[in-house]
Amino acid sequence: MRLALALGRRGQGQCWPNPAVGCVIVRDGRVVGRGWTQPGGRPHAERVALDQAGAAARGAVAYVSLEPCAHHGKTPPCAEALIAAGVARVVAPLEDSDARVSGRGFAMLREAGIEVVTGVLAAEAEADLSGFFRKATAGRPSITLKLASSFDGRIATASGHSQWITGPEARRLVHGLRARHDAVMVGAGTARADDPMLTVRGFGVARQPVRVVVSRRLDLPQDGKLAQTAGEVPVWLCHGPDADEDRMAAWKGFGATLLPCALTGRQIDPVSVCEALAAQGLTRVFCEGGGALAASLLSAGLVDELVGFTAGFAVGAEGLPSVGAMGISSLDEAERFALAEVRQVGGDVMHRWVRT
Amino acid sequence: MRLALALGRRGQGQCWPNPAVGCVIVRDGRVVGRGWTQPGGRPHAERVALDQAGAAARGAVAYVSLEPCAHHGKTPPCAEALIAAGVARVVAPLEDSDARVSGRGFAMLREAGIEVVTGVLAAEAEADLSGFFRKATAGRPSITLKLASSFDGRIATASGHSQWITGPEARRLVHGLRARHDAVMVGAGTARADDPMLTVRGFGVARQPVRVVVSRRLDLPQDGKLAQTAGEVPVWLCHGPDADEDRMAAWKGFGATLLPCALTGRQIDPVSVCEALAAQGLTRVFCEGGGALAASLLSAGLVDELVGFTAGFAVGAEGLPSVGAMGISSLDEAERFALAEVRQVGGDVMHRWVRT
Repeated sequence: MRLALALGRRGQGQCWPNPAVGCVIVRDGRVVGRGWTQPGGRPHAERVALDQAGAAARGAVAYVSLEPCAHHGKTPPCAEALIAAGVARVVAPLEDSDARVSGRGFAMLREAGIEVVTGVLAAEAEADLSGFFRKATAGRPSITLKLASSFDGRIATASGHSQWITGPEARRLVHGLRARHDAVMVGAGTARADDPMLTVRGFGVARQPVRVVVSRRLDLPQDGKLAQTAGEVPVWLCHGPDADEDRMAAWKGFGATLLPCALTGRQIDPVSVCEALAAQGLTRVFCEGGGALAASLLSAGLVDELVGFTAGFAVGAEGLPSVGAMGISSLDEAERFALAEVRQVGGDVMHRWVRT
Repeated sequence: MRLALALGRRGQGQCWPNPAVGCVIVRDGRVVGRGWTQPGGRPHAERVALDQAGAAARGAVAYVSLEPCAHHGKTPPCAEALIAAGVARVVAPLEDSDARVSGRGFAMLREAGIEVVTGVLAAEAEADLSGFFRKATAGRPSITLKLASSFDGRIATASGHSQWITGPEARRLVHGLRARHDAVMVGAGTARADDPMLTVRGFGVARQPVRVVVSRRLDLPQDGKLAQTAGEVPVWLCHGPDADEDRMAAWKGFGATLLPCALTGRQIDPVSVCEALAAQGLTRVFCEGGGALAASLLSAGLVDELVGFTAGFAVGAEGLPSVGAMGISSLDEAERFALAEVRQVGGDVMHRWVRT
């Protein structure tokens, strides 16, 4: 099952709106098939592993990181495929929360005389698939917020100098994290200040993450990298109801997708952004700031995972803060995350925290 | 030698203005004596270890983390004691930079026919004794700057709420760090806002660190804990030339020591503070902020070690910054420290950086 989970994670960021599932088929103590959800979401993990196993699947045990699907979509259901292949037992941690599956996959298998074991490594599988579940149950993707800052929590000097806070090893790890998410999201300020590409470089990914910019008024540079490359790698713009018509037309012309969102006060409502992204099929979103968007997501309790990179120098109080104003007056009001991992990455510290 | 260094570190914070030295005496592969500089600086490590070894020191090897002293001070020189005990060989990493010793201890031993080996673990010994060397060569103590902040580098909310940023495990570790330094230093703002005791609690230390407050005008609460306890544990106040006479008299009355320092612009010159502290004999100073003093020390390049504690929540940009204004416009202007250690402490991250 651990191997099935590890294989499943290979599909993260590559197969949305489908869950990134892994499957291992074992016959007489020997692995005869391995599969994970393929880029774009098809074929499913079970199909890949069954094809690899061939006739050896008969009488075998299939370990799947999620309940096999039971509905006829673009492909025949995996539960049927497992039955047809003659597997003797299916081990899975969790039921699929998709209403079209939810227990029906397991029921189909059991009716065909296949033994079904559930609950194995359920917590681990739930963490791996949290974006898929959150989208299904709450109508929003899981959000990872990454902030790379100086020792004193600054992401740039007062004059906007921000390259580079962290070293090449940390920046490479960030590209690896981007690759495991469906989309990379930044605020308008960061898009204007850094003119970022937001693509994954150096990992040979099959599918680049969608690039999302949250900008109430769409006052974004129309001669920047995002505009120039919107035809090649998707650019989605979450804008307010009062965005300028000409700008909307211009960005449509570049090939960007426009997602209208509601306001809360004078800012774009972060819940509305998340709902718009989930409605488009996103399950895992990687937010890289800036400070205003980070504060907005944190204040709304929308951050599932917090990844910090800390460098060994101080910028001082005039520097740009990693998190904008949050209106907190007592420390008890802040949402506390639990430390999941901490280690040295190059010359910097990486620390990862999860919602408690 | 590793054991000698470890023993030497036991004296850190307890034996200033003397160096915290360790000594191990080995006879026929067996440790027959162990010692470290005792609280207050006497007896020296060698004397303690020789007394423990007794007659077994004859023909033995003495591992000492610093060159044995050669001058008659309050006690006879250790070099003489080692000769009298009949040790066959002395292994030491470094020469003592004290002009009264500097090679003369080794020369005395060699003249007496004792084999002297130097250079063993020299870098480690130099790091352990850096405060002693810095005081001797640069006329200032080594400075460890500790900052405990939220994920986004804040030490309090806008309204001043700061208890607690980090958990009990991190706070206990801070007391352990205090115990290993000669003095704990804070700025006037922290002394006013937190009314701290700045003592070591829970480690049974023989000698509490001196409590240093840097305050240009001595506008400190005269009914606070520092004033009340200045007669029990030393309080030293680094003040500007324009400090109020009445306040000076009041603090003298409480039992505090007043150290006049020069100004640079409108602030107390941090170099002047360091020189005043070294002149009083301090070798290792532990600074716990606040932001203004931290920025002042960092800007002047006076920080030798940087210890960060990071908690898993954000306070937002209105919060009090861990490091005040530094006037940096390009990231290249910031002094970069090298990561020495990173680990989880309770629910927080501890990261330690050293001057490169």
